[in-house]
Amino acid sequence: MKIARFSRGEGVIAFGIIDDEDGELVVLKSDPVFMGFETTGERVPLAEVKLLAPVIPRSKVVAVGKNYRAHAEEMGGEAPAEPLLFLKPNTSVIGPGDPIVLPVQSEQVEHEGELAVVIGRIAKNLTPEEASEAIFGYTIANDVTARDLQSRDGQWTRAKGFDTFCPTGPIVETDLDVEHGSIEVRVNGEVRQQGDFADLVHSIPDIISYASRVFTLLPGDLVLTGTPAGVGPIVAGDRVEVSVTGLGTLGNPVLDSPLKSA
Amino acid sequence: MKIARFSRGEGVIAFGIIDDEDGELVVLKSDPVFMGFETTGERVPLAEVKLLAPVIPRSKVVAVGKNYRAHAEEMGGEAPAEPLLFLKPNTSVIGPGDPIVLPVQSEQVEHEGELAVVIGRIAKNLTPEEASEAIFGYTIANDVTARDLQSRDGQWTRAKGFDTFCPTGPIVETDLDVEHGSIEVRVNGEVRQQGDFADLVHSIPDIISYASRVFTLLPGDLVLTGTPAGVGPIVAGDRVEVSVTGLGTLGNPVLDSPLKSA
Repeated sequence: MKIARFSRGEGVIAFGIIDDEDGELVVLKSDPVFMGFETTGERVPLAEVKLLAPVIPRSKVVAVGKNYRAHAEEMGGEAPAEPLLFLKPNTSVIGPGDPIVLPVQSEQVEHEGELAVVIGRIAKNLTPEEASEAIFGYTIANDVTARDLQSRDGQWTRAKGFDTFCPTGPIVETDLDVEHGSIEVRVNGEVRQQGDFADLVHSIPDIISYASRVFTLLPGDLVLTGTPAGVGPIVAGDRVEVSVTGLGTLGNPVLDSPLKSA
Repeated sequence: MKIARFSRGEGVIAFGIIDDEDGELVVLKSDPVFMGFETTGERVPLAEVKLLAPVIPRSKVVAVGKNYRAHAEEMGGEAPAEPLLFLKPNTSVIGPGDPIVLPVQSEQVEHEGELAVVIGRIAKNLTPEEASEAIFGYTIANDVTARDLQSRDGQWTRAKGFDTFCPTGPIVETDLDVEHGSIEVRVNGEVRQQGDFADLVHSIPDIISYASRVFTLLPGDLVLTGTPAGVGPIVAGDRVEVSVTGLGTLGNPVLDSPLKSA
């Protein structure tokens, strides 16, 4: 089932189930992560809405560093023996089509396309076997990173935490075959990153179990599972697209901060 | 003005203004960070309530590493030229009297008493001169840290992000003289950390300005301003107390994770 969060004029925001055949959204009464799938009976043409970030975490965006071997190597290291966790703030989350804004503090901002898990239940100290119970669905994320600040600061918080540095969407798929599928990132149509789900160093159940033994995961939290090889810079005027099997394409334009010209 | 968040039986949670003279709470209609200081007319004896974490951030706990020179030295380095930001998740926040739970993953958990700022407004790209407009008030925090995991992981997210690793409270003071005052941390009554506000490497306005140029600060976000020298281990059975001029004392017992004996 494909879920979208959307607006249609006048700031009205709702959730809906996508009916691909009819190109319509079956409108839901409330946020399905919290309130289930009860519908209002209304249907809205997809063409008449703007899709939004499908989830705004109330607590955490958890991410994992160097979780594809080839990416760990291009970063000059090895994949860590345990998942290397970091946090992005919920203020970094934007939706499909929203601009990634390049901050004045950085000269080198890069794309990192990723498969992201949407948490559906309060989850604490899960085993890998229990992890699937905590999963509401899957979406696409772009773990946008100021590469120069990442190495300068040591801590990745600033480099990965700027406003607009976590594009997500376009939809949440509740049923995804995470054994078979791939990620592709294009900048202005040119392929930059490619990777198969099968190449994840730490599996999704292992990451969720590991993270849930550190912090309680809450409904609506996002868990980003790592980026494949091929990360590279984006500049103002670019358009970044992350395509993931079964999840469609997350596209975002890139803009300079208005402070840059100031 | 001293603000508390409290419960009194049956899970009823409210906010109140502390009337020190009468030992009472003047009950507020809602969360003053969002809704101001309108009172219900009711007064409750302080002795009859349990004080809770005064704020649960909807977005971020922002913290600053090595922001007292003597602490930077004891960690084997210098104070960074710019504030070194990291995030703690809101799931780490607990209140006065709540236990700090030592996770099974660490053999060395340490206290870090700090002065914390409570953000009162949406704040983005503030200058240091504008920073005070964003401040709702001040509270005490303990940036509990698994020191062994901090060095092992490199990234501090796990070491500082465990559930219960951000004790806060007991109250929020909206008017604090941040030019004059000090922090003291005691473990089982023995003084471990001491520092003066005046010794902050990066001032509160500078930290808030710097952070607001990375991520939009939201009402209820906490900004921890760094810990003075003297950090050290806590073990099960200990009681940690952080006292800050004008803010009282934040006391928390220390317990082993129930998983430790499993």
